[in-house]
Amino acid sequence: MSSIRKVKGGVTAARGFKAAGVRCGLKSKGKDLAVIYSEGEAEAAGVFTTNRFAAAPVRLCRRRLQRQTCAQSIVVNAGNANACTGERGDADAAAMAEQTASHLGLPPAEVLVASTGIIGVPMDRKKIERGIAAACRSLSRKGNDSAARAIMTTDLVPKQAARKLLLGRRRIPVLLGGIAKGSGMIHPNLATMLAFLTTDAAIDAKCLRRALRAAVEDSFNMMTVDGDTSTNDTVLLLANGQAGNRRITNPRSPDYEQFLSALKDLCQDLAIQIARDGEGATRLIRVVVEGARSREAARVVAKSVAGSNLVKTAVFGGDPNWGRIICAVGYSGVPIRPERVSLWIGRTLIVRGGQPRRQATAEAARKALAGKEVCLRIALGQGKASATAWTCDLTYDYIRINAEYHT
Amino acid sequence: MSSIRKVKGGVTAARGFKAAGVRCGLKSKGKDLAVIYSEGEAEAAGVFTTNRFAAAPVRLCRRRLQRQTCAQSIVVNAGNANACTGERGDADAAAMAEQTASHLGLPPAEVLVASTGIIGVPMDRKKIERGIAAACRSLSRKGNDSAARAIMTTDLVPKQAARKLLLGRRRIPVLLGGIAKGSGMIHPNLATMLAFLTTDAAIDAKCLRRALRAAVEDSFNMMTVDGDTSTNDTVLLLANGQAGNRRITNPRSPDYEQFLSALKDLCQDLAIQIARDGEGATRLIRVVVEGARSREAARVVAKSVAGSNLVKTAVFGGDPNWGRIICAVGYSGVPIRPERVSLWIGRTLIVRGGQPRRQATAEAARKALAGKEVCLRIALGQGKASATAWTCDLTYDYIRINAEYHT
Repeated sequence: MSSIRKVKGGVTAARGFKAAGVRCGLKSKGKDLAVIYSEGEAEAAGVFTTNRFAAAPVRLCRRRLQRQTCAQSIVVNAGNANACTGERGDADAAAMAEQTASHLGLPPAEVLVASTGIIGVPMDRKKIERGIAAACRSLSRKGNDSAARAIMTTDLVPKQAARKLLLGRRRIPVLLGGIAKGSGMIHPNLATMLAFLTTDAAIDAKCLRRALRAAVEDSFNMMTVDGDTSTNDTVLLLANGQAGNRRITNPRSPDYEQFLSALKDLCQDLAIQIARDGEGATRLIRVVVEGARSREAARVVAKSVAGSNLVKTAVFGGDPNWGRIICAVGYSGVPIRPERVSLWIGRTLIVRGGQPRRQATAEAARKALAGKEVCLRIALGQGKASATAWTCDLTYDYIRINAEYHT
Repeated sequence: MSSIRKVKGGVTAARGFKAAGVRCGLKSKGKDLAVIYSEGEAEAAGVFTTNRFAAAPVRLCRRRLQRQTCAQSIVVNAGNANACTGERGDADAAAMAEQTASHLGLPPAEVLVASTGIIGVPMDRKKIERGIAAACRSLSRKGNDSAARAIMTTDLVPKQAARKLLLGRRRIPVLLGGIAKGSGMIHPNLATMLAFLTTDAAIDAKCLRRALRAAVEDSFNMMTVDGDTSTNDTVLLLANGQAGNRRITNPRSPDYEQFLSALKDLCQDLAIQIARDGEGATRLIRVVVEGARSREAARVVAKSVAGSNLVKTAVFGGDPNWGRIICAVGYSGVPIRPERVSLWIGRTLIVRGGQPRRQATAEAARKALAGKEVCLRIALGQGKASATAWTCDLTYDYIRINAEYHT
């Protein structure tokens, strides 16, 4: 019996966390500023964009998490990415942390910052300042919904998830929760992936960082909407220890493994929510690769298929065009053996030994493609490693959203 | 004064080459089988797909060009890729070579084979056989147009180009020509890039291979429509020596350099024709990267920008969304320095030192995006190396072509 259970809630599901989302006017409508707060100091870990044009808030978080292992609050705005904004941008990100800290009675270094929205435009300081004041005033245990909404850009639905883990032999209840945003833009601009995670687990900084990296590898890093890596991608995780479990300090312990499983489960839930709500998406696509020689090989093949425009348009068209899937397996760069490859669309075996089965199966595959969720399973026949990637179909609306909205 | 001149014609521009394109019925309409023939034996070189599911004709050509350096004819069909067709596919590709050889009175090993079209369907042997007979009967010096048409799938226009090179101090006229096809599908299937090049230059096999690889690197390999590498991509080059120049045998000689320049020019011409006619394309996009530390770095950045769905939809929308271009520069993997990067859209400087110039320039950039050809120029400020990539915009019609045509 698994000790991980899905529970209601989001970034405030874990004990001791509060949040709030407010409108400060950076977006044309809706909430656009969120604050997340831990009652006590929390261990903190972060994973950030690999884009060389990292935005000012990303650079601020990176610097802080190099010097310190703790944080107590996160302030996030939507509507302006604070990227390509030079020294002014660095000052604005620092000011967001300072203002939040001052309202919450914290040292400024205890606050982390994230932004999403338009690139290359200076922040509207007045709006931000008013928003931070309002959010800090409204922090509550029930603020998860408003915070999830306040980080949206053109996301159609807010994204949150939570998990309860019964940890160790004593089955101490540990809670994990989070909110995330996916691809979208109010002004035509970059998609940004943001996720903010909290847990009441007691865990040291080293284990927390390690667990976050591992969980992100198998969740957010296995999800693609359009292959463009934003300047602002940020995943932050705070752990405040209020669960009262024996502090996790050994990455080889069963407790660590259990915590990692729950964290991975949470991150995958949020990643799937992002893929499902990708720009213009009508279908969630799950690409499962099995029988690879290594984990890395399985990941590369899965991401190659999930990243193919031709596969994604075929799914949009409801067309069981297996040649495109096989083609993306073939160009992934992994040395596969064509004669050993099998492919299922839904539950229908389409290709065995690198060659198609009789045409009669096309109808079953077509049916499998008609649902809201499509599973493409590829067996490489070379080993035992596997991986899963998530994406969405590529549709007219993706083009509309990204071509018709003008700067 | 450059000694390379654009001339009319295509794959039969060079002396001693004939071609023909005929209809054999593999496509729903139009010509679909071509034969190219050199009056004497020619040195041969080929570059092929890196896709692990390489089609049967690709494997046949690879095997032949490992064992031999000469060939005298190429037979190509459209409408069926002969990929994922197992042993039957290998036999069919070999039969195409044998039949062509028998009609032309050649040893079968002298014939190379290429295919494009649907994947995983056995070839219709009778149609192919009739087509080969008809094409061999109609070979002519003026067959370049019909051959260029016979290799099209959903290409909207045939693609051919030719160059005249005055070689060396004696200015011996050497001719080079070729035909190519780009992305398209009659049945929804893979885009395939095929190019067949001929020259009457006298050049040994080693130099020919080296020149072809170098020319392909800077032309076809710098062109992308949708990032999907086909199972059938093939570039073949035949050199029959009829120009009467002193045989090129030294890759460090001025003659080799001149020949390479002309070949590169020819390949770029064909690559640009393919990008311009990409599926659903309304605009040709040229991405020029300058000031890189190395050639390879410049190439990687140029291809990263050319491959970005967000950049391509922005160009379709005529939207000077420079943030997307800068973003694709940033995630290319090349260690750039944001504060040194400049960007021009058309002739308008948009970003200097990693930050936008005043908004007034947006209107000029918008105008630059309104034309049929768009140039995005990026200066990295790190060195002296440069590279150019070509692509097309991403449009509703790309989605229509790839989603609405059903298998």
